[in-house]
Amino acid sequence: MTQTAGHELGPTVGMIGAGQLAQMSVAPATALGVRFRVLANNAEEPAALVCANTVLGFKDDPETVREFAASCDVVTFDHELLTPEVMEILAGCGKPVYPSPQAVIYAQDKLAMREVLTDLGIPCPRWSHVESVTDAKAFAQDVGYPFILKTSRGGYDGRGVWFVNTEAEIAQVLERELPTGSRWLAEERVAFNRELAAQVARSPSDQCVAYPVVQTTQRDGICAEVISPAPNLDPLVAVVAQEIALRIARELDVVGMLAVELFDTGEGVLVNELAMRPHNSGHWSIEGATTSQFENHLRAVLDLPLGSPKAIAPWSVMGNILGGKVPNLFSAYKHVFARDQALHTHLYGKVVKPGRKVGHVTGVGADLSDLRNRVDHAVSYFTGEINE
Amino acid sequence: MTQTAGHELGPTVGMIGAGQLAQMSVAPATALGVRFRVLANNAEEPAALVCANTVLGFKDDPETVREFAASCDVVTFDHELLTPEVMEILAGCGKPVYPSPQAVIYAQDKLAMREVLTDLGIPCPRWSHVESVTDAKAFAQDVGYPFILKTSRGGYDGRGVWFVNTEAEIAQVLERELPTGSRWLAEERVAFNRELAAQVARSPSDQCVAYPVVQTTQRDGICAEVISPAPNLDPLVAVVAQEIALRIARELDVVGMLAVELFDTGEGVLVNELAMRPHNSGHWSIEGATTSQFENHLRAVLDLPLGSPKAIAPWSVMGNILGGKVPNLFSAYKHVFARDQALHTHLYGKVVKPGRKVGHVTGVGADLSDLRNRVDHAVSYFTGEINE
Repeated sequence: MTQTAGHELGPTVGMIGAGQLAQMSVAPATALGVRFRVLANNAEEPAALVCANTVLGFKDDPETVREFAASCDVVTFDHELLTPEVMEILAGCGKPVYPSPQAVIYAQDKLAMREVLTDLGIPCPRWSHVESVTDAKAFAQDVGYPFILKTSRGGYDGRGVWFVNTEAEIAQVLERELPTGSRWLAEERVAFNRELAAQVARSPSDQCVAYPVVQTTQRDGICAEVISPAPNLDPLVAVVAQEIALRIARELDVVGMLAVELFDTGEGVLVNELAMRPHNSGHWSIEGATTSQFENHLRAVLDLPLGSPKAIAPWSVMGNILGGKVPNLFSAYKHVFARDQALHTHLYGKVVKPGRKVGHVTGVGADLSDLRNRVDHAVSYFTGEINE
Repeated sequence: MTQTAGHELGPTVGMIGAGQLAQMSVAPATALGVRFRVLANNAEEPAALVCANTVLGFKDDPETVREFAASCDVVTFDHELLTPEVMEILAGCGKPVYPSPQAVIYAQDKLAMREVLTDLGIPCPRWSHVESVTDAKAFAQDVGYPFILKTSRGGYDGRGVWFVNTEAEIAQVLERELPTGSRWLAEERVAFNRELAAQVARSPSDQCVAYPVVQTTQRDGICAEVISPAPNLDPLVAVVAQEIALRIARELDVVGMLAVELFDTGEGVLVNELAMRPHNSGHWSIEGATTSQFENHLRAVLDLPLGSPKAIAPWSVMGNILGGKVPNLFSAYKHVFARDQALHTHLYGKVVKPGRKVGHVTGVGADLSDLRNRVDHAVSYFTGEINE
């Protein structure tokens, strides 16, 4: 453990990446009394704006990462898009790294994820590795149009994902993309009723806690609203979703937070994607749960006993503030705070760009409809969609 | 407003002082997306350990304070022990300073406080300015022994306060202390049932919110436990206590958090002390109230509409961790967290010294007796009083 003369502080947790997930980790790290360092690409990233121990350096540079890891007692991430070179450095850095490079593969590579989940018998949409236009056409014959072509790596928030309706569209995507060397998979377009997310935390000692299963609503491929717990969810389906997340965490040896994004088909759930870090679907937990996802991520990577994931009220509603017409979000506070004394606002300090996640609003209480209306109003005011 | 190229962030709040109150202000400043700077005497102070924008410099040095204020949009404090020179600099710095130097006098100087509260007709213990042993003897004739001799300035956590039982003891204290030039007052020793605290936040626009009145328990003159709301408190007395705090905030033009420490005599309340900043009696609000005292202090000094001070559960119990036998508090986490999933722990990163406030534990829930037992166990384990 890193010690300063005269001090006997907790260990140093280093987070590679300095976006809003790292930023929101500063508060629980402070409360826990652990030293928290972030590796930031630049001083204007959200966590760099607020974290006392910010190391500036390119997070994809192996030597930078090696030095950063050497200054920490445990290394973790606010993203999964690590380069193979960085993963190799971390695998050999001699420090605990969570999630491990072996585990994080399954959050980076959708083909590897589909393969392992299928081997485990965990329900997924029908899928196939497509190495040619012919492969994709054969998949289309099995599942019909429209279906989805996805890049195995690098897709995020709707990028790298194509809905194809015709053989011509298959050719259009794959003849452009396959020659770049990227690997692609085809997936059926699931006729889902809604999307859910199941979050668990897991420690190296294999302690796990499961958060309530939430409903997520995407707009233009970006998360817009999260309701915890998912309304009208069959309790048996909720347990199945939590068991899927717990099983994935254990089988893939995930340490830290794991989010499993799911399709609710009305007849059960299918796994859509995995995230091995705090996740947008868990922001409600800062005010809505006894222990936030950010605190439990830190507790997990420190191998401390985990905190209760229970909700503190019947409902929590989280609305993302996406960059809109108003460049200065702060100017909305007078109206938003005067109108509603009880909402919780988080602004990340990011430059406002259209569609960019620049903050979020959470309401916690007993009346779901009221909370949704209030959160929606605040979000719409921040983005400039309404002005009263 | 301070702006960085390409960014349109909120204003910069500067806090003079970097103790645990400044440290606990970092989380809500981050959530609000405002820039938060602290002026720290050294890099090992609690807020300096975690705040990205820490200015190192002696907080009693007028030139240091002048430069610090120039870098902020609004200046506030985590303490009231400002020197007259610093107060003069701040009064002329051209930036909003909250609480104002005019208001903060009443939190610094107990004689000034007693005079103004008496003028306002606010109930206080019987008191008298004593400029000589003769004055104190006359006071003793009126109120009887034992009574209290207090220094007007600089007393804190039991320091500068003497219980005197005899004329000889009066002489012993005052013949040593009066020649130093300090001003002293005599106060009756109130036969109180318990101590209470009433906290309010007030903005420059004169918006006020009142937190639930809490019960505080001192051991050796240092706060040990806070229960919110104060158990079995007559609702009318609670309202009287809140009204006293609101009236003091308005009459003294306090901006930010104000804590009024009170004696509950069974027949009403008497004002003991004032604090014009976030206060130990409000730490429960971080997890136990919709809006914490730290967030409302920031909202107030920024003249933003205040957040709801309502409790989120029937009871909150806060126990202070005072330095004890165990130098490394972090080592207690395995036990404390494994035993209780739902407590909230804050460790300030301070060197453990006997009797020093080095952290606190909060429990929030419906069963007061259970919460008190759990918080007491955790605190006793951290301090080494128990080891199982």
